[in-house]
Amino acid sequence: MLLPQINDPQQLKSLSVGELAALAEEIRQFLIEKLSVTGGHLASNLGVVELTLALHYCYDSPRDKMIYDVGHQAYVHKILTGRQDRFDSLRKHGGLCGFVKRTESEHDVWEAGHSSTSLSAAMGMAMARDLKGGDNKVIAVIGDGALTGGMAFEALNHIGHEGRKLMVILNDNEMSIAPNVGAMHNYLSKIRSDRHYLRAKDEVEGLLKKIPAIGGRLAKTAQNVKDGLKNMLVPGVLFEELGFTYLGPVDGHDLEKMIDTFHQADNVTGPVLVHVLTTKGKGYKPAEVDSYKWHGISPYKIESGQVLQAVGNPMYTEVFGQTLIELGHQDKRLVAVTPAMPGGSGLFPFAKEFPGRMIDVGIAEQHAATLCAALAMEGMKPVFAVYSTFMQRAYDQIVHDICRHNANVMFAIDRAGFVGADGETHQGVYDIAFMRHIPNLVLMMPKDENELRHMMKTALDYDDGPIAFRYPRINGTGVALDAELHSLPIGTWERLRAGDDYAVLACGPMVQVAEEAAELLKREGIQVGVVNARFLKPLDNSMLLDLAHAGTSMVVLEEASQAGSLGSAVLEFYAEHEIYDARVHLMGIPDSFVEHGSIKEQRQETGLTVEALCGRIKAMKALSTYTYKSTSTS
Amino acid sequence: MLLPQINDPQQLKSLSVGELAALAEEIRQFLIEKLSVTGGHLASNLGVVELTLALHYCYDSPRDKMIYDVGHQAYVHKILTGRQDRFDSLRKHGGLCGFVKRTESEHDVWEAGHSSTSLSAAMGMAMARDLKGGDNKVIAVIGDGALTGGMAFEALNHIGHEGRKLMVILNDNEMSIAPNVGAMHNYLSKIRSDRHYLRAKDEVEGLLKKIPAIGGRLAKTAQNVKDGLKNMLVPGVLFEELGFTYLGPVDGHDLEKMIDTFHQADNVTGPVLVHVLTTKGKGYKPAEVDSYKWHGISPYKIESGQVLQAVGNPMYTEVFGQTLIELGHQDKRLVAVTPAMPGGSGLFPFAKEFPGRMIDVGIAEQHAATLCAALAMEGMKPVFAVYSTFMQRAYDQIVHDICRHNANVMFAIDRAGFVGADGETHQGVYDIAFMRHIPNLVLMMPKDENELRHMMKTALDYDDGPIAFRYPRINGTGVALDAELHSLPIGTWERLRAGDDYAVLACGPMVQVAEEAAELLKREGIQVGVVNARFLKPLDNSMLLDLAHAGTSMVVLEEASQAGSLGSAVLEFYAEHEIYDARVHLMGIPDSFVEHGSIKEQRQETGLTVEALCGRIKAMKALSTYTYKSTSTS
Repeated sequence: MLLPQINDPQQLKSLSVGELAALAEEIRQFLIEKLSVTGGHLASNLGVVELTLALHYCYDSPRDKMIYDVGHQAYVHKILTGRQDRFDSLRKHGGLCGFVKRTESEHDVWEAGHSSTSLSAAMGMAMARDLKGGDNKVIAVIGDGALTGGMAFEALNHIGHEGRKLMVILNDNEMSIAPNVGAMHNYLSKIRSDRHYLRAKDEVEGLLKKIPAIGGRLAKTAQNVKDGLKNMLVPGVLFEELGFTYLGPVDGHDLEKMIDTFHQADNVTGPVLVHVLTTKGKGYKPAEVDSYKWHGISPYKIESGQVLQAVGNPMYTEVFGQTLIELGHQDKRLVAVTPAMPGGSGLFPFAKEFPGRMIDVGIAEQHAATLCAALAMEGMKPVFAVYSTFMQRAYDQIVHDICRHNANVMFAIDRAGFVGADGETHQGVYDIAFMRHIPNLVLMMPKDENELRHMMKTALDYDDGPIAFRYPRINGTGVALDAELHSLPIGTWERLRAGDDYAVLACGPMVQVAEEAAELLKREGIQVGVVNARFLKPLDNSMLLDLAHAGTSMVVLEEASQAGSLGSAVLEFYAEHEIYDARVHLMGIPDSFVEHGSIKEQRQETGLTVEALCGRIKAMKALSTYTYKSTSTS
Repeated sequence: MLLPQINDPQQLKSLSVGELAALAEEIRQFLIEKLSVTGGHLASNLGVVELTLALHYCYDSPRDKMIYDVGHQAYVHKILTGRQDRFDSLRKHGGLCGFVKRTESEHDVWEAGHSSTSLSAAMGMAMARDLKGGDNKVIAVIGDGALTGGMAFEALNHIGHEGRKLMVILNDNEMSIAPNVGAMHNYLSKIRSDRHYLRAKDEVEGLLKKIPAIGGRLAKTAQNVKDGLKNMLVPGVLFEELGFTYLGPVDGHDLEKMIDTFHQADNVTGPVLVHVLTTKGKGYKPAEVDSYKWHGISPYKIESGQVLQAVGNPMYTEVFGQTLIELGHQDKRLVAVTPAMPGGSGLFPFAKEFPGRMIDVGIAEQHAATLCAALAMEGMKPVFAVYSTFMQRAYDQIVHDICRHNANVMFAIDRAGFVGADGETHQGVYDIAFMRHIPNLVLMMPKDENELRHMMKTALDYDDGPIAFRYPRINGTGVALDAELHSLPIGTWERLRAGDDYAVLACGPMVQVAEEAAELLKREGIQVGVVNARFLKPLDNSMLLDLAHAGTSMVVLEEASQAGSLGSAVLEFYAEHEIYDARVHLMGIPDSFVEHGSIKEQRQETGLTVEALCGRIKAMKALSTYTYKSTSTS
C-alpha cells in the first residue's frame, strides 16, 4: 500500500509511472469505500484520479497554483495533500468540506461551488504573478460543462487576447451534471470522434507537397491553403482562433501520455489548453454506467451499488415536478427552462410528458432568465426553474430583462434556505434580499407542499408580471395534497393561530417551527399567534395594520439573511405607515456565511429553532413587565 | 426630400435602391442636425443607417421581430417607424427614450440598455414562434463589443445547438464604446483583413482538383483535407463550429450587397450569422475620426464639431481618476480593472501613468469581478471600477468569489443614484440593496469629492476584506481638496449639524439636500440635525444609539431604492437592539422604475428634494404635537 504513506504531494515525484498507476487504484478504492459511508461527489472524483496525480507529479503545489473549477472534483487533491484521515468527516458539520477550502490546506488556493470561475481566477493569478515578477505556473482544471457558462467565455476571450502563460485543463467527460447540451458540446464531440486528424498529421504534410507549384495570383491562394491546413489539422481550431495553443485530446486515464503532454505544454509561451478525455465514475461500474445518478450520491452498498436513501415524505422538488405536469395539461403555454439542472429541479417527468416544452440551456443562468423574458413577451408562460444560489448569476437579467419589461415569467426557486452538506457556496439565503427591491415582482413561499401546489396555480393564473415561488431542499411535511388547485389572493397572509400579545410571522418551513414553539409555550400559559407570511412581496398590509393596532409583539422568523429579507420588509412597512410602536423582533440568518453540515445543524448554529424561538418570546415577556406599552401614533 | 413622407416602414418597400441610398443621406442629415441640439448616441446611429434601412426594406416589422442589442443604435429604426417628429424631445423627461421602448411603438419589441441580451431575446422569440407554429422572422442586431459579454456566448451556444431559424446581424465596427479588446476582437480583425479568402473560393476549388487521386489510407486523409478546406474558406469558422451558417463579411454601407445577403440568409434553414462591417460616425467627419468621443455626445456645433459642454466643477469620476494616480504612486499593488468603460470611469490618466496596471477586460463584468478576487488573493490591490447598473451583472461573483473569500478588492462604483438621460435601464439605485446583505463587505458613499478622496485612501489602507465606495454621475460640490489623504475609521458617521428633535441621516449628494433643508427650516425656527451617513455598512452604532436615546425623530434620505437600502439598515439596527421607540422616516426611491429625464427631474419625481424634505419634517412636527413621546424600552 502506497497511499497511507502519502501526506505531501512532493512524495509523488520519486514514484515511477507504474507506482503512480498503482496509487491511482488505491485512491479509487479509498474513494469508493469512504463515500459509501459519507456520500459525496463520487463519479466526478473517480474521473480525475490520474489527472490529479499527473498534475501533482508534474507541478509544485502550492507554489504552482492549481485551481479546480466548481471544486467538487478536488477529493483526490485533498487525499494527496494530507487530508486522508479526515475523509470520515466529509461534508459533515466541522468536518472536511466537499469543495476546495483555503482554511483546510495551503494547497487549496481557490474556492468555488458555483461553476465557471476557474479561468478568471487563473487569469488573475497569472496577472498578479507577472506584475510581481514571479515565475510560478497557474493551472485551471475546468469541465466541459462549466465551459458553457458565460463568464468562462469572458475569461477565455481575455486570456487569449493578453497571451499570458497559463494552462487550462479541459476535463472533458461529456457531462456537466446532466448530459451536456449546447453547440460547444457538439464541437467537442466532433473533436473526440475526429481523432483521426491527429494521426494523419504527417500524412497530410506529405500530401501538401504533392500540390504542384503554381505561380501568379493562385500562388498566394495556395499559400493560404497551406497555412489554413495547419489550423485544420489541430482539432481545437476554435480555441486556437481565440488565442490558445491547443494540445490534445489526450486520454485522461493514461498517466504517461498526460505527463508527456504537460511537459509539452510547459514549452508553450502563451496560454495553452490541454484537452483531457476522462470517464466519470471510472473504476466503479455502477457509477460508470450512470454517472448522472452517481454525480452526488448518498451512502451506498459497494457490492450491489444500492443507494441507501432515507425514507421520508416526498421532497418539495418532487411535488413541484408532478404539479408542473398537471399545470402543463391545463395550459399549453407553459414551458420549463432549466440551466443544466433538469434532474435536480425535478423536471424529467415534465420533459417526458411534454417533449419540447422542457428547455435545458446548459450552465447559463443569465441566458435562461433573458430567454424566459422573451418567451413571456411572445405569449408563453415560462417557468424559470433554478436553485436560489445559482439564480444569483441572473440578478441583472431579472432586473433589466424580466422585471423592467414586466414580463409574465414564473420563477420556481428551489433550494431556498439552508442546503446542508454543500455548505456556504450553495446556501439559498439571499434571494429574498436581492429580489425584494425589484419593482413589479411578486414573491411567495409556501408553508408546506400542498400550498406550493396552490402557489404554482397562482403563478400560472397571474398575468400581471413576474411572479416567484421559493421552496426548500427538504422533504415535505406529509400534508394531504388537494386535488383541486386554486389561486391565492396576491398579498394575503394566513393567520394559523390566534394570539394578541405575541405573534410569529414566519415563512416556509419556519411556519412549522413557529407552530411547535407556540404549542410548547401554550403549555406554559403563553398564547402566541402564528402567521403564515406566504407573500414576501407584496406584504399583507391589512394584517400588518391589525397586528400593530392590537399591540402585538411580533417575531419575524425566516431562514434567510436577516439583512434585507422579510423582517426588513415588515420594518419598512411600519416606517412607511408611520407606525412607531410596532414591536418587531428579527430572527433571521446573521451576517456571515454558514458552512456545511446538516440543515438541522445550520439552523441550530443560527438560532432558527423551536428552542431559540421559545427563548426569545419568553425574554420579550420578561422585558415587557418592566416597561410601559408604547402609545400609538398612527 | 423623401424622409418627411416616411412614417411607416412599409413605405420603404416601393423605393428603389437608389432612393433608399438618397434616404440614407437624408437620415444622416436629420440625425446630425437633431442631435446637435439634444445630444445623444450619434456615432453608433450614423453607422447603422443603411443597415436599418436594408432590414426594414427586406423584412416586415413588427411581424418580423427586430431586436437591437443595447438599443442605443435604434434611432434610425425610430425615424422609420413614425417617430421623426419627436426627436426634439430625445432623452428628455416625458420625451423620446434614447433606447428601444415598447410603449413608444409596436415596432419596438425588445428593450435594453445593458449589452448582450439580444441573442437570448431572439432565441426566446424564435422558440415561442415555433411552439405556436408561426413563421415570422426573428433578427438580432448585435455589435462586436456586445458579443464579448458572457451571456451572448451562452445564447450562441444554445442557438447553435438547437438549430432554430433566426438571424444574427453582427454589426462589426471594431468598437464597443471603447476600442474592443479580447480574443474575439482579434479573430474578427483577422476575418476583416483576410477577405481575400472569399474571393479566392473558386480558385481554391480549382486548386483542389489538382491534388492527384490517391488510394488507401491516404485517400481518407485527402477527403478530410477537402472537407476541412471548405471550413477554412469560410472566414467565420468559429461561428460555423458553433452551429451557425456564416455569411459575410459584407459592407454595411452598401445597400445592394446587404439586401442580397439578407435574401441569401433567408434561404438558410437554421441559425445564420451575417457579418456586417460598418463605420461608426459614418458621414460626419468629426464622429468618424473620433467615434469614441462621439459615441454619446452633448450638443455640438455642426460645422466645427465643437462640443458645447456645460461648465462646472469636476465630476466625481474625474476626481476618482486623478486620486487613483496619487494612490498608484503610493502603492504599487494597486491595479484598476474595467469592463469596457476605461473612459467613462475616468481611468485613461491612470493607464497613461501606469501602463500595464489598467486592465480592460471588455464587456465582462462577471469575469472582471472574479479576476479582482484572484488578484487580491495573490497580494494585489485591485480596484473594480464599474457603473452601479452594470455591477448588477456581477452580483453572484461579488457574493461567491469576492466576499465569501473575503478578498481585498476595492470597488469604485460610479453612476450611483440617478443617471439622468439614460433612464431606467441605467439607474444606479439598487447597489446598496443588493450588496448590504453580503457578509464581509464595507460600503461607503462620500458627501463630496474631497471625502471621496479620503474614502479611496481608506479603501487602500483597509486589508480586512472587500470595501466599496459609490459616487454619483454629477459634478462635485466644488469643495477644496485636501492634499493629505487619511483613512476614515470604519463605520463612523459625521454629525454635520446639531439638532435633537429632528435629524436627517443622508448619504452622498443627499447630504447637501439635507443641509439646505435644515438651513431653510432654521429660518422657521425648526432645528434639524444633519448626519453624513457615509458608511452604509457597517453603520455607526454609537451614533444611532445616541440619536435614539435623545429621542430624535429621524429621516433617512437616500437616492436609492427605499426597499433594502440605508433606511432599511437603520430600521434593522434598532430592531436588533430592541429599541422600539426610535422614529425613523424613510425617504428613498419608491418601488418602480424611474424613466429618463434630468437628474433634477428624477429627484422631483421621487420626492428627493429640499422642498419635499422640508415638507416631511414639518408634517412630523405637526403630528408630534398630537401624540405623546414614546417611552424607551432599551
